[in-house]
Amino acid sequence: MAAAKPENLSLVVHGPGDLRLENYPIPEPGPNEVLLKMHSVGICGSDVHYWQHGRIGDFIVKKPMVLGHEASGTVVKVGSLVKHLQQGDRVAIEPGAPREIDEFCKIGRYNLSPTIFFCATPPDDGNLCRFYKHDANFCYKLPDNVTFEEGALIEPLSVGIHTCRRAGVTLGNKVFVCGAGPIGLVNLLVAKAMGAAQVVVTDLSASRLAKAKEAGADFVLQITNATCPGGTLMLVGLGSEMVNVPLVHAAIREVDIKGVFRYCNTWPMAISMLASKSVNVKSLVTHRFPLEKALEAFETSKKGLGLKVMIKCDPNDQNP
Amino acid sequence: MAAAKPENLSLVVHGPGDLRLENYPIPEPGPNEVLLKMHSVGICGSDVHYWQHGRIGDFIVKKPMVLGHEASGTVVKVGSLVKHLQQGDRVAIEPGAPREIDEFCKIGRYNLSPTIFFCATPPDDGNLCRFYKHDANFCYKLPDNVTFEEGALIEPLSVGIHTCRRAGVTLGNKVFVCGAGPIGLVNLLVAKAMGAAQVVVTDLSASRLAKAKEAGADFVLQITNATCPGGTLMLVGLGSEMVNVPLVHAAIREVDIKGVFRYCNTWPMAISMLASKSVNVKSLVTHRFPLEKALEAFETSKKGLGLKVMIKCDPNDQNP
Amino acid sequence: MAAAKPENLSLVVHGPGDLRLENYPIPEPGPNEVLLKMHSVGICGSDVHYWQHGRIGDFIVKKPMVLGHEASGTVVKVGSLVKHLQQGDRVAIEPGAPREIDEFCKIGRYNLSPTIFFCATPPDDGNLCRFYKHDANFCYKLPDNVTFEEGALIEPLSVGIHTCRRAGVTLGNKVFVCGAGPIGLVNLLVAKAMGAAQVVVTDLSASRLAKAKEAGADFVLQITNATCPGGTLMLVGLGSEMVNVPLVHAAIREVDIKGVFRYCNTWPMAISMLASKSVNVKSLVTHRFPLEKALEAFETSKKGLGLKVMIKCDPNDQNP
Amino acid sequence: MAAAKPENLSLVVHGPGDLRLENYPIPEPGPNEVLLKMHSVGICGSDVHYWQHGRIGDFIVKKPMVLGHEASGTVVKVGSLVKHLQQGDRVAIEPGAPREIDEFCKIGRYNLSPTIFFCATPPDDGNLCRFYKHDANFCYKLPDNVTFEEGALIEPLSVGIHTCRRAGVTLGNKVFVCGAGPIGLVNLLVAKAMGAAQVVVTDLSASRLAKAKEAGADFVLQITNATCPGGTLMLVGLGSEMVNVPLVHAAIREVDIKGVFRYCNTWPMAISMLASKSVNVKSLVTHRFPLEKALEAFETSKKGLGLKVMIKCDPNDQNP
Repeated sequence: MAAAKPENLSLVVHGPGDLRLENYPIPEPGPNEVLLKMHSVGICGSDVHYWQHGRIGDFIVKKPMVLGHEASGTVVKVGSLVKHLQQGDRVAIEPGAPREIDEFCKIGRYNLSPTIFFCATPPDDGNLCRFYKHDANFCYKLPDNVTFEEGALIEPLSVGIHTCRRAGVTLGNKVFVCGAGPIGLVNLLVAKAMGAAQVVVTDLSASRLAKAKEAGADFVLQITNATCPGGTLMLVGLGSEMVNVPLVHAAIREVDIKGVFRYCNTWPMAISMLASKSVNVKSLVTHRFPLEKALEAFETSKKGLGLKVMIKCDPNDQNP
Repeated sequence: MAAAKPENLSLVVHGPGDLRLENYPIPEPGPNEVLLKMHSVGICGSDVHYWQHGRIGDFIVKKPMVLGHEASGTVVKVGSLVKHLQQGDRVAIEPGAPREIDEFCKIGRYNLSPTIFFCATPPDDGNLCRFYKHDANFCYKLPDNVTFEEGALIEPLSVGIHTCRRAGVTLGNKVFVCGAGPIGLVNLLVAKAMGAAQVVVTDLSASRLAKAKEAGADFVLQITNATCPGGTLMLVGLGSEMVNVPLVHAAIREVDIKGVFRYCNTWPMAISMLASKSVNVKSLVTHRFPLEKALEAFETSKKGLGLKVMIKCDPNDQNP
Repeated sequence: MAAAKPENLSLVVHGPGDLRLENYPIPEPGPNEVLLKMHSVGICGSDVHYWQHGRIGDFIVKKPMVLGHEASGTVVKVGSLVKHLQQGDRVAIEPGAPREIDEFCKIGRYNLSPTIFFCATPPDDGNLCRFYKHDANFCYKLPDNVTFEEGALIEPLSVGIHTCRRAGVTLGNKVFVCGAGPIGLVNLLVAKAMGAAQVVVTDLSASRLAKAKEAGADFVLQITNATCPGGTLMLVGLGSEMVNVPLVHAAIREVDIKGVFRYCNTWPMAISMLASKSVNVKSLVTHRFPLEKALEAFETSKKGLGLKVMIKCDPNDQNP
Repeated sequence: MAAAKPENLSLVVHGPGDLRLENYPIPEPGPNEVLLKMHSVGICGSDVHYWQHGRIGDFIVKKPMVLGHEASGTVVKVGSLVKHLQQGDRVAIEPGAPREIDEFCKIGRYNLSPTIFFCATPPDDGNLCRFYKHDANFCYKLPDNVTFEEGALIEPLSVGIHTCRRAGVTLGNKVFVCGAGPIGLVNLLVAKAMGAAQVVVTDLSASRLAKAKEAGADFVLQITNATCPGGTLMLVGLGSEMVNVPLVHAAIREVDIKGVFRYCNTWPMAISMLASKSVNVKSLVTHRFPLEKALEAFETSKKGLGLKVMIKCDPNDQNP
């Protein structure tokens, strides 16, 4: 009987404007992998962008790709060589898992590895589905007092951690954040957690500042007296290719300019922070949809109605 | 008429066990100095030690010395070249002020300068008195919402800042603090403010842990999984000369061992933290005495009755 | 005919004092591995120690183990997934290859990974043999102007690189090296290459200083005015468990104490240095023996007759 | 007799195109200063620029100013508080001497101090003269084996040190230097001394590359695989205000962009390097003129005839 076959409902982008819920086979984990029953997956601006445009820069959707990379779930099957996880463990998923220990991985900057696997970046499938397998070393066990949704939110939080860490934010710093979308907000949260005394967030739209509804394509984080000599200017998630920066003016004041590309080494510290209640991300979630209504969820996210839209993948548990 | 002479009541140590309240002349500030009307001065374990023993290691009280170095006050006279302060400014005093821009000062580690002026370290006078002059660049203006006592507490807080900064405490770290005296407590406060997820404080005495009454002579801060490979072990305010450390065991696990000597570059960030309420030090103060009762205050501190004893130097304002 | 079977002569330690040349099967490389025809392998003090004592600390020879970890050879077979190497490539071998991307590997300190594979550390076999397979990402192609022996010497050189890098040796530094064995010498070479202006090497034995014959069990590298405030003291390859260090004296002068455990991220820069002739290691080699005479080579090394004894594993090419 | 009055011949710029040799009084050193008999002073592009244009950016020659800031000389008089120098000491002069221990000085970046004294930057006089007084802490004693001209060349060398240090140049790095003038050359020298394996220098003019004659207004140093992810791009001595940099492309590859403003903490290490012959700057000097012929020297420098023009200020000693 076909109906007895285990189902793996998945949200698949086929090309610009072509988003479908389809039934995929349940994957089999390799020796270093775990199979996860997905619980909560947040929608990111990049997911919406792949759906709308079929590409982001040089990353082009050439074959059907499962979306989703802000995710958490439960271990249901463990690869033969995996030691630190077992069935039933609740985990947060780091979407970027290096395929090899190359020169970037060796120096602790594996986010720069050109061969890295990354959920929902073509051609790698994401985890907006019922069942998903992943490198076990990039699945992090959640303590009992951290919810699945907090686990899923570690991904956007990681952008803030990586940015503030590279900026060298420390005790008593004054931090300017330009842009009040999700990235702006996680930078605000992390800068405060790292001891920044003052975080000033700016945005063109008053309503956006008030509601902080949207994720904002362009974003600049200006750290530690960046207008002062010796400060640091961070560039995060910039949309436009050409940015007008007074480079020489910055250079002769020894203002360093640094970019960030995704993140690395953030999950363990994010989990510690969430477990100790040092940071509160729960309020970022404004909408929830079951996986079956994923298309509606994406419409909501596209319209900018809210801050973070969460998709609930487990039909038996739609709790946070 | 002798009575018309302005008074400068000062607490002076003359040798072991010989502590006196005496009237000193009011000093005249040099071109780069300010004259301060003192407000609040905390008693430190080292003040008590100079009174009891007349020395700390190689620093010997050879001539009468005014005690006190955890201090705040109000500017009453401004040197001719001082630009950033004016009469009436409330300031916190950094007790160590380099006398010259030597090799240590040039690299930003002026605490290591052998010729540094340091309040209440022989032969330099401290500020447990009515009027005191100090290098204006080492007096930091307090915002309206930071009290004089908070200003005075920046000194012990600075030990915590310098230690945690050198330890590289960051987001999500697990920190072990051995010793629940004032130094242990400021390390606890600062580590939390820098994002440490868990700070474990240990002490031999249960009552001390409970009350955190005493400053504890010996103190070790063990940072960031110090028992784990790649961690850091900080040594702060150690009393005994010979310490039994499993050095080789630490070395082959690349556990770094670092000491701290006083502090540098901590006042501005401490003021920012206090102004933004990122850290709460007010509860450290358990006793207050007017300057006239300084000897009683020192007896209290010596007995370990309480955590931080504060001496109020302004007869017209004994508020926190 | 048995003679037709490909041979893999290997130097195997069976226990204390029990060293044998045996014929092993030629291994088959996995998808991420390469098979190497070994060329030059240096004898390290640890190889001699395993032969003499059957153990080093907690690492105990419980089953027969091939010795050797300072090695270079030629690729003769390439795993299916390997892209950066091909048959005929001459390579230097980094003996430590992480088995997984664990927490230490993720932060760029894979030398601290507890599950790392490491040549000739029980229970992992080394490469004192004819044919050896290794993780391809830890085999580094040698330029034409770098000899096999220079390739093998990258291993001891790496100890110097890792030490001097962790010590922060930089332009104009004064470096004290205690111990004139091979480790002392590579630290000398690397410190000079990093811009140290003065490197002072000390040793108890005048003849050893003169000849720099032996590797010396105990070794301390004292960097950057370590007796001066703010310096750094490195601990490398210490033999004795208890070391008498004036810890408090060091701590209050903010002299950092750091250990090193093997190395990480050194092969690429070592190859660049050798290719550009920035460092000269050739003179370290004082003796050469063919693999067939490996026991004689070990006797020579044990007697301390010379600095570095090199074993030539390729019967058809015994050149440097 | 007027002729008996001690003379202090000085090279003074009065405005654009107006350069004069004039007799100034010999200054009296303050308690923390030394009076120097000048020996060798190099001509910098900025000296020529002040002469030609009367300004550099916001720094405008509003009153007559003595030129010169690449200098060395002999101590002839010592301020009352100076301990580390005595009459007859040969010294190199660091032209930037902080007037106060402000926030930048405190953190070891005194080059960013807005109130710093800096030779030959309006309104501060330089040292192209017979006698000059300077802050004794910024005069560094030269060992016997370092010549006065090498001492004067520490100033341009310092630009290279500060740049390469901020870039984090280390062992085995590949460094690209754009521009083959003096700044390009000192970066080349310092990068090699810091262990760079390969330094590639580029320039538009073949003759300039060949002769490396000129100082080049625009200059960009591209460090450590800057075109590779994770590298660093340094901006040094840029002439044009608007520079076209693919900022976003750099940001998403985590290529850091850093500027340099003058230098700090370079003289001691430069002297160590020169004393140990780790770097050779002597060949940079292509022309020498006595102070009396300073105008001819400036014409030579302006024409770009040579690399570094040195002015000899001591009529009794015109040696290097």
